[in-house]
Amino acid sequence: MSSPDEIAKAFVLHYYTLFDSNRAGLGSLYQEGSMLTFEGERLQGSASILKKLTGLPFQSVAHKVDTMDAQPSPGNGILIYVTGQLQVDGGNTLRFAQVFNLQPTGVPGGFYVLNDLFRLVYG
Amino acid sequence: MSSPDEIAKAFVLHYYTLFDSNRAGLGSLYQEGSMLTFEGERLQGSASILKKLTGLPFQSVAHKVDTMDAQPSPGNGILIYVTGQLQVDGGNTLRFAQVFNLQPTGVPGGFYVLNDLFRLVYG
Repeated sequence: MSSPDEIAKAFVLHYYTLFDSNRAGLGSLYQEGSMLTFEGERLQGSASILKKLTGLPFQSVAHKVDTMDAQPSPGNGILIYVTGQLQVDGGNTLRFAQVFNLQPTGVPGGFYVLNDLFRLVYG
Repeated sequence: MSSPDEIAKAFVLHYYTLFDSNRAGLGSLYQEGSMLTFEGERLQGSASILKKLTGLPFQSVAHKVDTMDAQPSPGNGILIYVTGQLQVDGGNTLRFAQVFNLQPTGVPGGFYVLNDLFRLVYG
């Protein structure tokens, strides 16, 4: 059984690799009860969330994680807090911070994103 | 019954007002199972967390909240994500981002901080 830190690390690597290479693949990480608050805009359910993420107006994006913290959360979940930098279409680097609350899917070792909160952080 | 957004807004105001005026008073917001990850350092339990917060090496601090997002979380909790600025001893302004997961205390309308993750965000 992996520790919350190991699961968090693997999830974060998987999430941003998928985001940067195949955004449409992110849909499988969310379920109907999933919530995304993206720059203050609220979305619920994997279909709405995927539509938002795939509709973001850029061709390419590259995320770089600077810090990652994880804690166990209720429901055998894992709360993950990431700060980092992203570069959109080869332009300026922007700072971001993002929170994920993973919950078990029911499949052994499986997790989905219940809570996702994203903000750019302006310096 | 207040909405998660209303509770989050009231909590955030209360938390940073207390932090900036009477740090010792923050202890009552945490319980034995509470976790704080502060700039990567892990603390657990209200006594350890309070010791860390009151021992931070500055005389005065002022927090300013720029964004606040909230979502319901498992266990009838509220996940809160804050970005903002803080000024220590009247010096330079620093950016921060902080996550709180509130859980019900059992007293009607009462919440405590189960998860707390804090990071300065460098521009």
